[in-house]
Amino acid sequence: MNTFGTILTLTTFGESHGPAMGGILDGMPPKVHIDINEVLRHLSRRRPGQKQAGVSQRNETDMPEILSGLTADGLTLGTPIGFIVRNRDARPADYEGYSGKFRPNHADYTYYNKYGIHDFRGGGRASARETVSWVVAGSIARQWLDTLGITIKAEYVETNNAADVAATGDSTGGKVKCVVRGVPIGVGEPVFDKLQSRLAAAMMSINATKAFEYGDGTKSSGMLGSDSLDLFAYPYAPAKPTLTNHSGGIQGGISNGMPICFTVHFKPTPTLMRRVESIDSNGEKCIIEPRGRHDACVAIRAVPVVESMAALVIADLMLLRNRY
Amino acid sequence: MNTFGTILTLTTFGESHGPAMGGILDGMPPKVHIDINEVLRHLSRRRPGQKQAGVSQRNETDMPEILSGLTADGLTLGTPIGFIVRNRDARPADYEGYSGKFRPNHADYTYYNKYGIHDFRGGGRASARETVSWVVAGSIARQWLDTLGITIKAEYVETNNAADVAATGDSTGGKVKCVVRGVPIGVGEPVFDKLQSRLAAAMMSINATKAFEYGDGTKSSGMLGSDSLDLFAYPYAPAKPTLTNHSGGIQGGISNGMPICFTVHFKPTPTLMRRVESIDSNGEKCIIEPRGRHDACVAIRAVPVVESMAALVIADLMLLRNRY
Amino acid sequence: MNTFGTILTLTTFGESHGPAMGGILDGMPPKVHIDINEVLRHLSRRRPGQKQAGVSQRNETDMPEILSGLTADGLTLGTPIGFIVRNRDARPADYEGYSGKFRPNHADYTYYNKYGIHDFRGGGRASARETVSWVVAGSIARQWLDTLGITIKAEYVETNNAADVAATGDSTGGKVKCVVRGVPIGVGEPVFDKLQSRLAAAMMSINATKAFEYGDGTKSSGMLGSDSLDLFAYPYAPAKPTLTNHSGGIQGGISNGMPICFTVHFKPTPTLMRRVESIDSNGEKCIIEPRGRHDACVAIRAVPVVESMAALVIADLMLLRNRY
Amino acid sequence: MNTFGTILTLTTFGESHGPAMGGILDGMPPKVHIDINEVLRHLSRRRPGQKQAGVSQRNETDMPEILSGLTADGLTLGTPIGFIVRNRDARPADYEGYSGKFRPNHADYTYYNKYGIHDFRGGGRASARETVSWVVAGSIARQWLDTLGITIKAEYVETNNAADVAATGDSTGGKVKCVVRGVPIGVGEPVFDKLQSRLAAAMMSINATKAFEYGDGTKSSGMLGSDSLDLFAYPYAPAKPTLTNHSGGIQGGISNGMPICFTVHFKPTPTLMRRVESIDSNGEKCIIEPRGRHDACVAIRAVPVVESMAALVIADLMLLRNRY
Repeated sequence: MNTFGTILTLTTFGESHGPAMGGILDGMPPKVHIDINEVLRHLSRRRPGQKQAGVSQRNETDMPEILSGLTADGLTLGTPIGFIVRNRDARPADYEGYSGKFRPNHADYTYYNKYGIHDFRGGGRASARETVSWVVAGSIARQWLDTLGITIKAEYVETNNAADVAATGDSTGGKVKCVVRGVPIGVGEPVFDKLQSRLAAAMMSINATKAFEYGDGTKSSGMLGSDSLDLFAYPYAPAKPTLTNHSGGIQGGISNGMPICFTVHFKPTPTLMRRVESIDSNGEKCIIEPRGRHDACVAIRAVPVVESMAALVIADLMLLRNRY
Repeated sequence: MNTFGTILTLTTFGESHGPAMGGILDGMPPKVHIDINEVLRHLSRRRPGQKQAGVSQRNETDMPEILSGLTADGLTLGTPIGFIVRNRDARPADYEGYSGKFRPNHADYTYYNKYGIHDFRGGGRASARETVSWVVAGSIARQWLDTLGITIKAEYVETNNAADVAATGDSTGGKVKCVVRGVPIGVGEPVFDKLQSRLAAAMMSINATKAFEYGDGTKSSGMLGSDSLDLFAYPYAPAKPTLTNHSGGIQGGISNGMPICFTVHFKPTPTLMRRVESIDSNGEKCIIEPRGRHDACVAIRAVPVVESMAALVIADLMLLRNRY
Repeated sequence: MNTFGTILTLTTFGESHGPAMGGILDGMPPKVHIDINEVLRHLSRRRPGQKQAGVSQRNETDMPEILSGLTADGLTLGTPIGFIVRNRDARPADYEGYSGKFRPNHADYTYYNKYGIHDFRGGGRASARETVSWVVAGSIARQWLDTLGITIKAEYVETNNAADVAATGDSTGGKVKCVVRGVPIGVGEPVFDKLQSRLAAAMMSINATKAFEYGDGTKSSGMLGSDSLDLFAYPYAPAKPTLTNHSGGIQGGISNGMPICFTVHFKPTPTLMRRVESIDSNGEKCIIEPRGRHDACVAIRAVPVVESMAALVIADLMLLRNRY
Repeated sequence: MNTFGTILTLTTFGESHGPAMGGILDGMPPKVHIDINEVLRHLSRRRPGQKQAGVSQRNETDMPEILSGLTADGLTLGTPIGFIVRNRDARPADYEGYSGKFRPNHADYTYYNKYGIHDFRGGGRASARETVSWVVAGSIARQWLDTLGITIKAEYVETNNAADVAATGDSTGGKVKCVVRGVPIGVGEPVFDKLQSRLAAAMMSINATKAFEYGDGTKSSGMLGSDSLDLFAYPYAPAKPTLTNHSGGIQGGISNGMPICFTVHFKPTPTLMRRVESIDSNGEKCIIEPRGRHDACVAIRAVPVVESMAALVIADLMLLRNRY
C-alpha cells in the first residue's frame, strides 16, 4: 500500500525522524538521460528553510543518493532506480513531549489506533517529509516526459497571506493549480483508471489535501449544458481539437489533446504555534505545546509535489497506452 | 483496467447497445446473506424511465442474472459472484446517424483516437449504462457492510431545476452529497491507498463527475487553522472522538470513527435536445441530431451509483484492514 | 484472486454445477479479428464426452456466448470481452450423496475449512470445469499471437495406457509437453515476473498439476556446466541465436528467440470408480460412492488448457514488453 | 515488475557492481519483534567466501542497514521496512573485459536486446547478488511466521560432488528440498493464486532454477490413482488430517494442514573456469576469459534463498487469508 502506479511504480519508505526516507522507482524506460541537477532543483522548491514567509525553517539538505538503475553517465538502464534521502536535520528531541499525545487533525490518533503502535516523532510515516521521495521520483519521471514534449507547471494560489497569518501563530489553507501540456490524445484507461481518477487519487494522497477538481470543476454542478460544450474546431487540428476547454483536457477518462487543468485544495496546517487541549493514548486530557518547525501554509511547498505526482500519473498512463 | 479494488474487486464488461452488461465481484466474505430484492431496489433508483423530470425515458427492466457465488439460499460462498444484465430496451437504430460523428463533450473522439475503432451506439463502453453493473456489485457489498453496522446514504442536491431546464432542451449539472456512518477507526491504507484517495478515484470514475471534496473540502483552502481543528471530546468515546468534523471522518488517510462526508460534482449532460455542429472521423463538419433518450441532469440517477462505489471502497478497505 | 495477468487479464467465475461458467478477458489489443470457430475448435479439444478412452462422458456443448468487446464482424474493440458458458448438462443429483463428505485428494476438505461453506456438487469452484473459461480466453488471445507469428503446440505424453487403467476403475497421471515458437527476444520481466515464473504459476493453476520444468528441467540438477552451455551460433541470426536449447528459450527470465519448451506433470484423477473410506464434515467416517463422470487421465483433455494458459502468459508479457 | 506479493510485498533494486542492493518490505504486521541477528545468520548462510568447496570466494560482509519500519527496540511499526546492503567487495575491474560480450547461458544477451543497454559487470541486475535482498526480507518475514508456529527448513541435495567438479573448472547442478511445517488449513487463494502457483513462481524467480515440483511431483505423472490417494485419518485431527502426504500439503490450491513439501532444481553455474567462444553485441566472435569469482554449484548457497522466498509466499498468503 506504499506503492503507486501500474507500469511505472513508486514504492516508498521512511519515518520523518528515522535515519532516511527513500524509494524505488521501477519501470522507467531505458536510455533516458537523467540530470541529477534537475532533481535537486525540484527538491529545493519543496525544501523547508527557504527564505519565504510561512515555510518551515527545518534545514534539510535533501541530497538524494541514487543507488541503482543509472549508468555513470546518467542513462536509465530500465532497471529499478533505488534512492535514499537521509534525514540529516531531524531533531527528535523537539517531539519528546508529544509521545502518546494525539495532536488534533493529525494522524497520531488514527495511526495509533490502526496499528496499536506509532512513531509520534514528527508524525512518523504520516509526515509530509514523505513527499521528498515523491519529488525525487517525479523529477526523474518528468525528464522522460520532457523528451516527449510533455510539460507540467503548477502554481500556488494565495487565499490568505501566509506571512500575516504566521505572525499570529495561526495557519492557513491554500490552493495549487496545475496545467499539463503536450499530452497526446488517448492517455487514460477506462473505466476504472480514467485519467481524472488517477490524478484525483494522486492528489488526495498528498498530505493536507481536501478537494480535487478538473476542468470546470465544482462550477460544473451549477452550469447548463449549453454553456459547457467544448465544440470542435474547424478546420480540425489534433493539437487543439476544441474551441474551449471546459473538459480540462479529458473526455471519457481519456486525454483529448487539450491542456490538462486541475486544482488541488489544501487545508490549513493543523499545528498552530499555540497551546491546544487534547487527549492522550490513555484517553486523558493533555496539553500540546508546539515545538517543531512547521509551515503556516503547506500549499506553498506543495507545488513541486503536485507536479511530481502529476508526472508519475501521466508517465504511467503513457506507458500503459503504447502497448500494441 | 476494468477492474476496481484490491481484495474485493469488481471487474466489468459491456457496451451500452450490445447484448448485456455484467461483472464479476470477487472477494466477498463467505456466509453473508444476500437479498436480491435489495439489489433490485437500488437498481430501480438508478433506472431511467422513472416518472421524474430530467431523467431519461429509456425503459430498462434491469433484472440481473446472478450466475455464481451464491447458494440457493442466497449465502455467499466466498467465490466470485458473476452476473449479467441484459440490454433489453437497447435501440441501436436511434444512434445510426451518429456513426463516425463525434458528439461534443462525449467520449467518441477520445475512444476513436485511442483504439482506432469505436462503438458509437449510445457511447458503447463509455455510456453511463456501465454503472448498472456497479450498482449490482455495490448493492451486494453493502449488505455485508450492513451486518457490520456501516450505512451509506447519498442525496441529490439541486443547483438548477432539472424539469425547467429539460423543458428548454438544455441540461444542467448537479451535486451528490454522501455520508458513510459506522466505519470503525483504522480504515484506509497509507500512503497511496488513503481512504480519501480511494473515494476520490471511485467518484472520478463515475461518468460526468468533475470534482470531489471531503470534510471542509474546497472551503478548506480559504480557512485558518484555528477555525478548522477537530478538538478531541473529553471524556473520550471512540464512537464520537472529536467535537467537530472538519476532517470529514478521515485523518492521515485513515478513518477516525466520525461520519465520512464527501461531495461529488456532476457536469451537465453533454447531449442537448438541439442540433449541434461537430466534426466526424474524417475531420469534416457534421450536424449532430439528438435522437436517443437522455437525462437533463445525470446527478439525480447517480445517487445510488455514488453509494455503490462508496460501498465497494469501504468494503475493500475493511477487508484490507483486518488482516492480522 | 480469480484474476490472472497484468495487462491482458482474465477474471473468471462459476461453480461446476451452477448456471454458468464465464469470464472477462480485458486488455486485448483493438482491431484483432477473432474467429469464433477457432474458439469452438479448442473447446471441443478439452470437451468431455469425446470418443476417447479415459475421458469423462459428460456431454457438454460448451457454446460460449460472447457478450461484449467485439464488433458484429468479430473485430476486438479494445474493451473487455465478457463471455459465459452455460452448464447445460450439469447433473447435481449425481452429487447429492457427496454433501458434507470429503473426497480424498479433492478440494472439498480445504474449501470447506477455508470458507466455512462449500458447494460439494462436482467440486464447485474447484472443478476442472473452470478451465472451460480459460480455453475460451486463451483461444481468443492466441489469435492475436497468430498475427505476430507466435504459435503454441502442446501434446499429451502417455505414461500408462489410460484405457487399460480406466477398465480397472483406476486412474493414471500423465504429462503434457508444450513448445511456443516465434516469441521474439525480450519477453519476460525481471526479477519477479520472469517468463518461467509466469509460466510456472499458470501451469500450477491448472487442476491436478504437480510439477513444472522448462528447458533441461529436472535433468539440469544432475548435469555439468560443460554439458549444458547453449553456445552462440556464428554467424549470428536472431531467429536461432544458439546452437542448442538447454535453456528452453529463456535466459535471465527473458526469451532469447529460441523455442520455449516446458513440461507439465499431472497427477492421477483422485476420483476412482471404487468405494473409498473417508470422513465427513463432522469428522465421522463415511463411504464415498463415486457416481459422477470422470476422466481416467486428466492430462489428455488438459492439452488445450496448457496451450491456453501459455497463450495468456505470452500475450500478457508481449503487451508488457512493448511499452516505450 | 520488481515487486513480489499482494499484501506483504517486497520491492527490490540493485546492480551487482553498483553501490548497493536493497529493498522495501511492505505489509508486515505491527508489533512483531525482529531480531537482526537472525537476519545476519541467514545472510551468512548465503554468503560467498564461505569455507566450503564450490562456493564463490567473494568476501561480502553483507551488513544490511535498516532505514525504517522498526522501533529502536526492534518492533515493527506496520510501516514499510526499507533496507540497503552495500556492495563493499565489488570489483568491477574483474568484469572489464566482458563489456559487450555475451556470456553463454547468462542474461547478457537477453537484457541487452530487451533494454538496448546493459550493465555487463557481474550480470548487473541479473546477478544472483540480487538474492541478498530476498534473504533480508525473508528473514524478517519468517520471524512473524515463527510466532505462529510456522517453520521453514530447506536442504541441499547433492547430485555431483561440487568440490571434485570445481577442481576441473567445471560446474554442476543441484537440488534443494524444502519443508514448511505448521501452516494451518486454508492458506492459498483459488483459482489463480493457489499455494503451489505462488511457490512455483517464487522458486522460478531464483537464478538458475529449472524445475519445481511439490508432493509426489514429477513422479505423479507415472502413478496410478489408487497409489496416490491421501486417505483421511480416523479419528480426525486437524494437525495431521491424512495418513499419507502425496499431495505435499496442498489440495485444490489450499493448504490442508500437512507439511508442505517441494523441490527446486538448479542448473549448473554457466560460468566455467575455462575459455569459451561466444559473440559480442556486434554479432562478432569473441572469447570469454572468466575472471570473476563464481560458485561451482549455486544450489548450495541457494538454501536460505529458497527458505526466504517460501517465507514471503506463506506470510503473504497468511495475510490474505485472515481477512474477515
